[in-house]
Amino acid sequence: MLPIPKKFFVTSGKAVSKISDLNAFDEALLNAGIGEQNLVSVSSILPIGIQQVKRRELPMGAITHTVLAQQRGGEGEMISAGIAFGFRDDGQGGYVAEGHIHGTGKALREILEWKMGEMAKLRGIRFKKLDFKIEEVSIPMDHYGACLGALAFVF
Amino acid sequence: MLPIPKKFFVTSGKAVSKISDLNAFDEALLNAGIGEQNLVSVSSILPIGIQQVKRRELPMGAITHTVLAQQRGGEGEMISAGIAFGFRDDGQGGYVAEGHIHGTGKALREILEWKMGEMAKLRGIRFKKLDFKIEEVSIPMDHYGACLGALAFVF
Amino acid sequence: MLPIPKKFFVTSGKAVSKISDLNAFDEALLNAGIGEQNLVSVSSILPIGIQQVKRRELPMGAITHTVLAQQRGGEGEMISAGIAFGFRDDGQGGYVAEGHIHGTGKALREILEWKMGEMAKLRGIRFKKLDFKIEEVSIPMDHYGACLGALAFVF
Repeated sequence: MLPIPKKFFVTSGKAVSKISDLNAFDEALLNAGIGEQNLVSVSSILPIGIQQVKRRELPMGAITHTVLAQQRGGEGEMISAGIAFGFRDDGQGGYVAEGHIHGTGKALREILEWKMGEMAKLRGIRFKKLDFKIEEVSIPMDHYGACLGALAFVF
Repeated sequence: MLPIPKKFFVTSGKAVSKISDLNAFDEALLNAGIGEQNLVSVSSILPIGIQQVKRRELPMGAITHTVLAQQRGGEGEMISAGIAFGFRDDGQGGYVAEGHIHGTGKALREILEWKMGEMAKLRGIRFKKLDFKIEEVSIPMDHYGACLGALAFVF
Repeated sequence: MLPIPKKFFVTSGKAVSKISDLNAFDEALLNAGIGEQNLVSVSSILPIGIQQVKRRELPMGAITHTVLAQQRGGEGEMISAGIAFGFRDDGQGGYVAEGHIHGTGKALREILEWKMGEMAKLRGIRFKKLDFKIEEVSIPMDHYGACLGALAFVF
């Protein structure tokens, strides 16, 4: 039997750092509440019957399957990262899209809408509605920046 | 106890799209029967005693450990992606190689044969035989393309 | 319940090859004792109460969550890869940093120390001590090279 997630939450985070973009990314993960877990990247399907729960504290070091969108950047840059997700209106699960750009969160939202639209067209389905979790950072001088959006499967 | 896969299947898919290479890749995954799963990439060992099964429908959203070779491209390009796999003739499991090129499936097959040969030499073993699962796409004008070969562990 | 690792070991390996950097990397993995497993990359947290064990032989093909740092290179190059890890002095688990450079192991060690220091500062914690597992290769003419440091969760 393959494991099928039963619950997920969405979260996001952002940070700037004078030290490094890795440092900013680490802080953005802590910010998002997933900085103390062993993250495993997965592609992006919502199983039938899965439920969205509130962001919760996860056990330290737990192996956590996550759809993660991240963007890092340098001084003066505008960066965005995030996810879109939606359930099929026929009750047969749903889909997640991830995106990250050097650009605004507004632009990223359009890109994610478009990606979700294409996934729906390809499968001949419709979404009940689309939800988004996007972060944007305008990185100040003398700083690095990072932002991320994530969907974590918490079983 | 670490999980050890007991069954696997191989599959492949390809698609072209007027929209984007992501769209073509998504369709190629659906084509291959693994477009509705949460894929986790793994390196490429066949455990002792594992059995190959026919491609089967997997539950939507199942977390599926997969050796995945993919190639995307633009108009006019020739792309190929695929895997080779073989069992040791001493019964001690087997190996998977993955490859993806801007080139023909025939060329990729040679590359994969060579990779498998090197894995065998390094370990001082021989394969019973080699199997391949390769897709090739000659991408038409005004299209993007994607192809993939995969070996999915289905426990 | 999310899986939480209870045991880990650290290991490293290196190799040079006349054939390819992939070949060198494959040999370095065998060298490190993790060349016959299905490796899944994870980010880098040591759960509370986890224990370090001696490097042990893992079952062939076992799905093994691993923090892996690797570097490959060509003739004449100096390459290094490795990890640093440390437990918090408050008993609340620990962290792993990974790094890989075209440079010496000594330089990499400084980088890893610095990365661990930043993780500590960000969280306002201290480490009991830092441990390192670093490999360096000075690649001879007519060879490729690869080296790696890894922390494998063995449950």
